[in-house]
Amino acid sequence: MSTPLYYEDLAVGQTFGTGTVLVEPDMIKVFAAEFDPQPFHLDQDAARASLFGELVASGWHTAALTMRLLVTGEFRIVGGLIGLGAEELRWPWPVHPGDVLRVESEVMELRPSKSHPGHGLVRVRNTTLNQDSEPVMITVVTMIAPRRVS
Amino acid sequence: MSTPLYYEDLAVGQTFGTGTVLVEPDMIKVFAAEFDPQPFHLDQDAARASLFGELVASGWHTAALTMRLLVTGEFRIVGGLIGLGAEELRWPWPVHPGDVLRVESEVMELRPSKSHPGHGLVRVRNTTLNQDSEPVMITVVTMIAPRRVS
Repeated sequence: MSTPLYYEDLAVGQTFGTGTVLVEPDMIKVFAAEFDPQPFHLDQDAARASLFGELVASGWHTAALTMRLLVTGEFRIVGGLIGLGAEELRWPWPVHPGDVLRVESEVMELRPSKSHPGHGLVRVRNTTLNQDSEPVMITVVTMIAPRRVS
Repeated sequence: MSTPLYYEDLAVGQTFGTGTVLVEPDMIKVFAAEFDPQPFHLDQDAARASLFGELVASGWHTAALTMRLLVTGEFRIVGGLIGLGAEELRWPWPVHPGDVLRVESEVMELRPSKSHPGHGLVRVRNTTLNQDSEPVMITVVTMIAPRRVS
């Protein structure tokens, strides 16, 4: 377990990794049945007739798995990983059954928060990669980090 | 059920609604345990000590519920709702247990796709609202829609 960081512990260019998750076919279908019930996420045969041509995970499933990897990964902030939003979110490659995902994070920018005194804002690029290092999701998010009380 | 639309059926300024979903406390905790295991999503007491001050849903849970509302809502595209990504994603208000969510979608821009011949790109703003019409998530996404074969 890494030590949770304060705003002052962060620096532009820092990078952090995560563990990995294996995306099993049933995980894709269970998530899709609850949150994104479209044929190309639910059924291999139906997926062949779709734009994807094969079963793929919902992009929101990839997003959720990315969050799990982050929360259990190297990049820890005091008070938790709390995102205000993303200015970019892309799914360049689809996620297929059997893929193994991990996330690489890089600190892009640090600035004090105007609306949350005692906190700073951390702009981070999170790149979710498959086993062939193809990016399956890229987000640029802004997170909030408490400042060290001096 | 609405009729699925082709690219040519869409126009800037069109709006679409969805049904609603009640966010039960257990749903928040089950999602968080799997995808975003942080105290403020898992436990009411721990949440009191957090930046949120109370139990809130993971933003990625809100995103997943938004997708379900969209897939089962008025806005249907031939071939499915397939997003390439988002240029904006914000969570202006937190989602609490007992909230009732719905989504309003507005078509912002239409343009032909260069990389997917026979398709067009549809830029849509999806606003997820709670029972007090407070926005809990705003995304501006680009989706792909097939062109009518003439």
